[in-house]
Amino acid sequence: MPKQVDHDERRRHLGSAVLRLIATRGLEAASLRNVAAEAGVSMGTVQHYFTTKHEMLDFAQRYNYERAKVRIPKLIAQVPEPRTTRSLLRALLVDLLGLDGESREGARLGAAMLAYAVIDPQAAVTARIAYDGLTGFLATQLQAARDNAELPGHLDPCHAARHLCAVVEGLCGPILIGACAPDQALAVLDDHLAALFG
Amino acid sequence: MPKQVDHDERRRHLGSAVLRLIATRGLEAASLRNVAAEAGVSMGTVQHYFTTKHEMLDFAQRYNYERAKVRIPKLIAQVPEPRTTRSLLRALLVDLLGLDGESREGARLGAAMLAYAVIDPQAAVTARIAYDGLTGFLATQLQAARDNAELPGHLDPCHAARHLCAVVEGLCGPILIGACAPDQALAVLDDHLAALFG
Repeated sequence: MPKQVDHDERRRHLGSAVLRLIATRGLEAASLRNVAAEAGVSMGTVQHYFTTKHEMLDFAQRYNYERAKVRIPKLIAQVPEPRTTRSLLRALLVDLLGLDGESREGARLGAAMLAYAVIDPQAAVTARIAYDGLTGFLATQLQAARDNAELPGHLDPCHAARHLCAVVEGLCGPILIGACAPDQALAVLDDHLAALFG
Repeated sequence: MPKQVDHDERRRHLGSAVLRLIATRGLEAASLRNVAAEAGVSMGTVQHYFTTKHEMLDFAQRYNYERAKVRIPKLIAQVPEPRTTRSLLRALLVDLLGLDGESREGARLGAAMLAYAVIDPQAAVTARIAYDGLTGFLATQLQAARDNAELPGHLDPCHAARHLCAVVEGLCGPILIGACAPDQALAVLDDHLAALFG
């Protein structure tokens, strides 16, 4: 299926170019024309994937999410046995901090998307879906841990998920601007998990 | 001193216009021309206060900080007696959540500035100074509370300040986009303070 392979490869190539452009020059610079230049393809090729800025941002966010779905299982696989909800969650949360590589690009995209969501109702809808998705996932994990007696029985999983999400997202900004060192951020995250899991 | 009064009043008028513009239309829209139009003054008047985008952003951040210095003592005055470090800190932190009014505009400015700091080294320096200022202030308060036996003796004030700052800044985004309700955010903050102060 060479056609399909070409299509997937081109999609990844374009996705990487969009994320790189947003991460280094911001949403303002992410015009269709600049994306085409960054990817080294024609405007016609770009327009096969998106034709408006909103479609481009949806494409960027979906591609960022797809990359995470490939990356995170590899991080999970590196978590030493015996794996616990806590150690698995930690691997995911460290990735969300945006300390390096693709994860850093994802955090930069997040900062750009938040600023955009503040002034654009359509982007705000997308951002709310992303937040609900993340906190919902965390709540499910925490509830499972509670049912498994890894967490106290009185814990409210949704509330704890919002708290945990706030810690991670609140560390992202200071990490991105170099105000908080990676080891300081990891110490805060580990302290939070230690207090949560006891 | 009518001259001085005019100057202060004009400065506030322009500061309000800049913050309103950034909060509703983002940094991208905050050109000197748009600021002049928003404030209903000439470009010449605007250029008396700033001539570049960087100078405008410094002006916006300084004005946002000045407004907070007027607003926060009033919030502090409303904290019921007996006032504790915890209850005073809470008043400040609730204001930082950006739930309404000037505080909301400040949070919107923060989201815009972070996105800009990610791609602009000069803005990153300003953002680091702001982060260091806030965490430094929080650490000083927490250290005083520790010395006063309101907090456990083993607590690291700088570490706890970074944690607290992350919680508040991490709640700001979800509040701004309407993904986290004010009462949910306040519950997370109160839970965090309860765990910290015991």
